[in-house]
Amino acid sequence: MTYRTHNLGELRKEDIGKRVTLSGWVATKRDLGGLTFIDLRDREGVTQIVFPDNVSEEVAKLANEIRTEGVIKITGEVKERFSKNANMPTGDIEVFVEEMEILNNCDVLPFQVTGDENLSETIRLKYRYLDIRRNQMARNLRARHNMMTAIREYMNEKGFMDVDTPLLTKSTPEGARDFLVPSRSGEFYALPQSPQLFKQLLMVAGIERYYQVAKCFRDEDLRADRQPEFTQLDIEMSFVTMDDVMNEIEGLAKKVFAGVTGEEANYSFERMPYAEAMERFGSDKPDVRFGVELKELTDIMAGCGFKAFSGVANSGGLVKAVVAPGCAESFSRKVLGDYENYVKTYFGAKGLAWIKVTEEGVNSPIAKFFSEEEMAAILERTGAVAGDVIMILADKEKVVYDGLGALRLALGKDLDLIDKNEFKFLWIVDFPMFEWSEEEERYKAQHHPFTSIKEEDMEAFLAGEMKSVRTNSYDMVLNGSEIGGGSIRIHNQDVQAKVFKQLGLSDEEAREKFGFFIDAFKYGAPPHGGLAFGIDRWLMVMMKEESIRDVMPFPKTNKGQCLMTEAPGKVEEDQLEELFLKSTFVEETK
Amino acid sequence: MTYRTHNLGELRKEDIGKRVTLSGWVATKRDLGGLTFIDLRDREGVTQIVFPDNVSEEVAKLANEIRTEGVIKITGEVKERFSKNANMPTGDIEVFVEEMEILNNCDVLPFQVTGDENLSETIRLKYRYLDIRRNQMARNLRARHNMMTAIREYMNEKGFMDVDTPLLTKSTPEGARDFLVPSRSGEFYALPQSPQLFKQLLMVAGIERYYQVAKCFRDEDLRADRQPEFTQLDIEMSFVTMDDVMNEIEGLAKKVFAGVTGEEANYSFERMPYAEAMERFGSDKPDVRFGVELKELTDIMAGCGFKAFSGVANSGGLVKAVVAPGCAESFSRKVLGDYENYVKTYFGAKGLAWIKVTEEGVNSPIAKFFSEEEMAAILERTGAVAGDVIMILADKEKVVYDGLGALRLALGKDLDLIDKNEFKFLWIVDFPMFEWSEEEERYKAQHHPFTSIKEEDMEAFLAGEMKSVRTNSYDMVLNGSEIGGGSIRIHNQDVQAKVFKQLGLSDEEAREKFGFFIDAFKYGAPPHGGLAFGIDRWLMVMMKEESIRDVMPFPKTNKGQCLMTEAPGKVEEDQLEELFLKSTFVEETK
Repeated sequence: MTYRTHNLGELRKEDIGKRVTLSGWVATKRDLGGLTFIDLRDREGVTQIVFPDNVSEEVAKLANEIRTEGVIKITGEVKERFSKNANMPTGDIEVFVEEMEILNNCDVLPFQVTGDENLSETIRLKYRYLDIRRNQMARNLRARHNMMTAIREYMNEKGFMDVDTPLLTKSTPEGARDFLVPSRSGEFYALPQSPQLFKQLLMVAGIERYYQVAKCFRDEDLRADRQPEFTQLDIEMSFVTMDDVMNEIEGLAKKVFAGVTGEEANYSFERMPYAEAMERFGSDKPDVRFGVELKELTDIMAGCGFKAFSGVANSGGLVKAVVAPGCAESFSRKVLGDYENYVKTYFGAKGLAWIKVTEEGVNSPIAKFFSEEEMAAILERTGAVAGDVIMILADKEKVVYDGLGALRLALGKDLDLIDKNEFKFLWIVDFPMFEWSEEEERYKAQHHPFTSIKEEDMEAFLAGEMKSVRTNSYDMVLNGSEIGGGSIRIHNQDVQAKVFKQLGLSDEEAREKFGFFIDAFKYGAPPHGGLAFGIDRWLMVMMKEESIRDVMPFPKTNKGQCLMTEAPGKVEEDQLEELFLKSTFVEETK
Repeated sequence: MTYRTHNLGELRKEDIGKRVTLSGWVATKRDLGGLTFIDLRDREGVTQIVFPDNVSEEVAKLANEIRTEGVIKITGEVKERFSKNANMPTGDIEVFVEEMEILNNCDVLPFQVTGDENLSETIRLKYRYLDIRRNQMARNLRARHNMMTAIREYMNEKGFMDVDTPLLTKSTPEGARDFLVPSRSGEFYALPQSPQLFKQLLMVAGIERYYQVAKCFRDEDLRADRQPEFTQLDIEMSFVTMDDVMNEIEGLAKKVFAGVTGEEANYSFERMPYAEAMERFGSDKPDVRFGVELKELTDIMAGCGFKAFSGVANSGGLVKAVVAPGCAESFSRKVLGDYENYVKTYFGAKGLAWIKVTEEGVNSPIAKFFSEEEMAAILERTGAVAGDVIMILADKEKVVYDGLGALRLALGKDLDLIDKNEFKFLWIVDFPMFEWSEEEERYKAQHHPFTSIKEEDMEAFLAGEMKSVRTNSYDMVLNGSEIGGGSIRIHNQDVQAKVFKQLGLSDEEAREKFGFFIDAFKYGAPPHGGLAFGIDRWLMVMMKEESIRDVMPFPKTNKGQCLMTEAPGKVEEDQLEELFLKSTFVEETK
C-alpha cells in the first residue's frame, strides 16, 4: 500500500503514459464541459486531475462528494494536457483518474486557504492549522526552517558546540519579570529570560565556542513585536576580542541572509560607534538605507537671538535639525503642524521649528531671530538647498535624539526615501556602560552587569565618571531593527567586583544575586564574549513582515493568549494544592 | 591583539622555529632540573610549554604565581622536544616562553579536573562548570553535539521541516502531571509533556514532514533515568504507512549511531510483534544481545501432578521457564534462593521452581511431581542440557512476564552473557490498543488515544473485544532500552469518536478535553504518523553511561534540584501577588 508514487510538483511531459498514484488536498474543483477537474495540492506543488467520461460510477460519486480542502488519493494515467498552463511546473500534463479514495472530507471552512484574501488575525490564529496552508504562512515557516538550517550549518562548520541549557531554572530578581514554575517542594523554578549565566559558565567549563537556538521567556506587557516566549540564537566564544566576534558573525549574517532570501544583501557591515549613531541618526538602531541625517546646530544657536534655542544651547541641551528634501511646497502648515504634534505627543518636545528654503530665500516664522551669518551657517551646516525644509528641535539630549530620530524615520516613510528591496546591515559599537535611570535616580548597567569596559575608559570608570564609560559591546542592526547584540564580558573578578560596587551592589547583595556565578569565576575563567540574536525579529525583517507573529508557527496574541488552544486556562484545585498554592483570583476581581 | 595564533592540539615538528601565541588552562605544572614545565590545555588539546633559564624576571614571577587550572596567554618559540611524547599529538615539540600574561588565576579547586578520579555526583553537579572540563563530561557533551548535528543533517536531507511549537501551552488533564506556569490573567499555562497535539496539527496544516528537537516536561516522581525536563526528537509524517516511517527512521538511527560513536552497529532492525517479544523475552524492550529466552510450559503443566503448576495452567495463567546455561554446579541453594527472593519481592511471584539437569539425570525438589514423559517434554521444550538449570515461574501472565523478563536480564548480567561492545537495534511493533488498568478497573489506551487500529483488528474493535485489538505502533529498542516510539494516528473522525467511546469518554468529555483538536480534523486531515525519541536516554545507551545525568549538560537531581544554581528557590511575595497566588507552604509544614 502506498499513498503516492509522485509528489504533486514533479510530473512533467516525460511522465506521460505513466500510471501514478497521488495524494493531496483538493485546492479547487470545477466542472467544465461535463467533466470534473481538480487541482490537487501537496507541499510540493499542484497537479491537475480529471475525471473522464468513462470513470466508474463509484469514482464519479466520490468526485461528487469531495469538497475543497478534502484529502484524496487517486490512481490514474498521466496524459498530455489539452490547454497547457505555462505558469505551473506541472502545467503540461494532467492525470486521468481511474481509482479514487476519499481519505478525509472537509467541512465548511472558516476561510478560504487559497488566494491572499485579507483575513482578521483573530480568525487566522484560531485556525492556525488552516492558516499555515495559506501562502504567506507556508512561505514564512519554510523560511524559518531555512534560517535554522543556515545557522546550524555555519555554527557547526566554525566549530561551535550546540549545548542545551535548562528551562527550569532560578528566578533572578533583576531584569524583566520572570515566568515562575511552582514545584511540589513549595519553591519555584523560573523560565529563563536568556541563557546568559549558563553560556558564560560554559566558557568557564572550557567549551570555548558555544551556540544554542534557545527558547526564552519574559512576562512583559506585550507590544507589537514582543511575545512571552521567543527564540534566541545564543552564542559565546572564549579567547576573543570584539573584532574576532564581529568578523565571525558577519559570516553568519551572510549565510543566513542568503539561506532565507536566496539573495545577497548590502554586506558592508559598517561599524559605527553608539555616539556617532546618536549624533547622526538620533537612534542606536538607525535605518541607513536613506539619508536625512541629524545636523548639529547647537554651537550656531548659542549666541542667536531666538531665546528658545539659545537657552537650550547654553544649558547643556541640543539644537539639531533634519532636512526634508524637496518638500518646501508640499509641506503645508497643516503638514508641518502634524509633524510637530507627533514629536510633541510621543517624545515630549516643546515644539518643532521649520525653515523653508526657496529660490527667493528662506521662509520661516523664526527667520527674523537670526542674523544673516547665522542663517548662512544654518544653511551650510544642514546642506539645505532651494526646495528643502529644515526642521529643528531644541531640547534635552534625549528629547532631541528620540524626537528627531523618529521624525527622520517618518520622513523616510512619508517621502518614500527607502528602497524596500534593499537590505543593509550595520554594527553599532561601544555602547555606554551606564544609563541614568530617571525612575530610580541611579545609574544602571545599560547591558547586563557583566559587560566589559573599554580599556581606554578604565581610568574614567575607576574615577567614578559614569557617563563617559564605554563598553566592548556591539549590536547588529538590519534596516533599522536591532536583530542581535552582545559584548565582551568581564572575566576578571576584581573588575567585576568594582562594577557591582558602582552599580550600588554591596558584596553581600552581589553574592546573594549572583553567588554561584561569582564563585565560578574564581576557577580559571577565560576571557570571553558573545551575543544573541532575536530569531523572530530577524526573520520578520528579512521576510518584510510587519508582525513578528507572522513568522512564528503558533504565536500568542498581545494579551499572551493562544487562540487555538485557549491557553492559558483554568486548572483543577487539586493541581494547585499539590503545589502549595491558592488562587486569590476570584476574590480579587469580585 | 590576539589571544592565540594556534590552538593547543595543532603544533607539529613542521612548526619548529615559529613564534607562536597560545592561550589556555594550566593542566599540570612541574619543576624539572630547575625549569618550570606547564602542560597547557584548551578544547583542542595539550601543548607543553617551558620557561627557560633566560626568561625575564617578570615572566618567571608569573610562572611562579600561576596555579593549576589558571588561564594564561604566552608567546614564545616552538622548539624540538628533548624527550618526545609519542602519546601526544603535539609530543614532538614544546614552546619556549618569552612573554606571559595571567588572564585569570585559579583558586583552590574543589576537585581535580584531570584524571578520572571517582567523585561524588553531588559535588560534580554543584561545580558542573568544572565537571565539564573533565574527560567524561567533555566527551559526552561533544557526543551530544554530534548527535544533534547528525539528526538535523539527516532530517533536513530527507525534506523534514524544523518547526518549533510553543512551550507555554495548555494543561491537559490526561497523562503525567503537568508543570504549571501561572499567568497574570489569573489563569495558567502548562509546559508541554510532548508536542503531540501540535505535531498532528502541523500535519493538518499540510507540513507533511515535520521534526523538532523539543524540550518536554513532566512533573513526575523522579527515577534514575527520568528528569523533569528532557529533550525529545519529535517526528511526524503525512501520507505514510508504518513501513514508510520505520524505513525512514532506520536510516536516521544509522546516521546518528555512526555520528556519535564513529562505529557501525548491528543494523539488522528486526521487527518483532509485541506479543512475540512478551512470549520470548517477557519484555516489550528486550535486550536481544543474548539468548536465555522464555519457554512455554503451560500446556505441559495442565495435566501434571504439581498442583501449583496445573492450577495456574488451568485457570488462564502461564507457566514459563528460562534456562541458566551451565549453572547446575555454580547455583547453590543459596543462589537459587536469592533469585527466588528477587522475583518474589519485586514482581509478586509466589515462588521460583528450579530443575538442575546433570549427566546423571534431573535434580529438583519438584521432580517427583512429573511423569517421565512430562519431564522429557520439559527438557525438550526448554532445550536444557546437562549442566543447565531450568527456572520456572507459574502465575498470572503479568507476573510471569515481568518476573521472568527481569530474571532473564539478571542472568544475562550475572553470567556475563552480554557483549558490551555490541549494539543491537530492534523494532517492537503492533502494541495492544488497550491496557487493563487494575487501579481504575477499566481499559485505557496504552499509547495515546489517537493511535490507529490495525485494519485486520477493526472488526474485533467494533465488536468491543478490547484485549486483542492491536495498533499500528512501533517502538525502537537499543540494547534493551526503549529509545523511541510512535504510531500511525487516527485521521478519520468517525474512528476517533469510536475510540473515545470505547475509552469511556462521552462526546462532551472528549470535546472538553480535546475540543480544538477534534475540530481541526474536520478540515481535511491527511493520514499521518510519527514517533518521538528520548534524546537523553538514546545518548546514554550509545555512550554506555549508567545515568542519564551524565549525558546532560545541566541535569537536576532526582529531587528536581539544580545543585549549581540552587533552583528551585524562593520568590518574593509580590511576584506571587501579581499572579493572584498565595503560598500555603509554611502553614502546611508547620
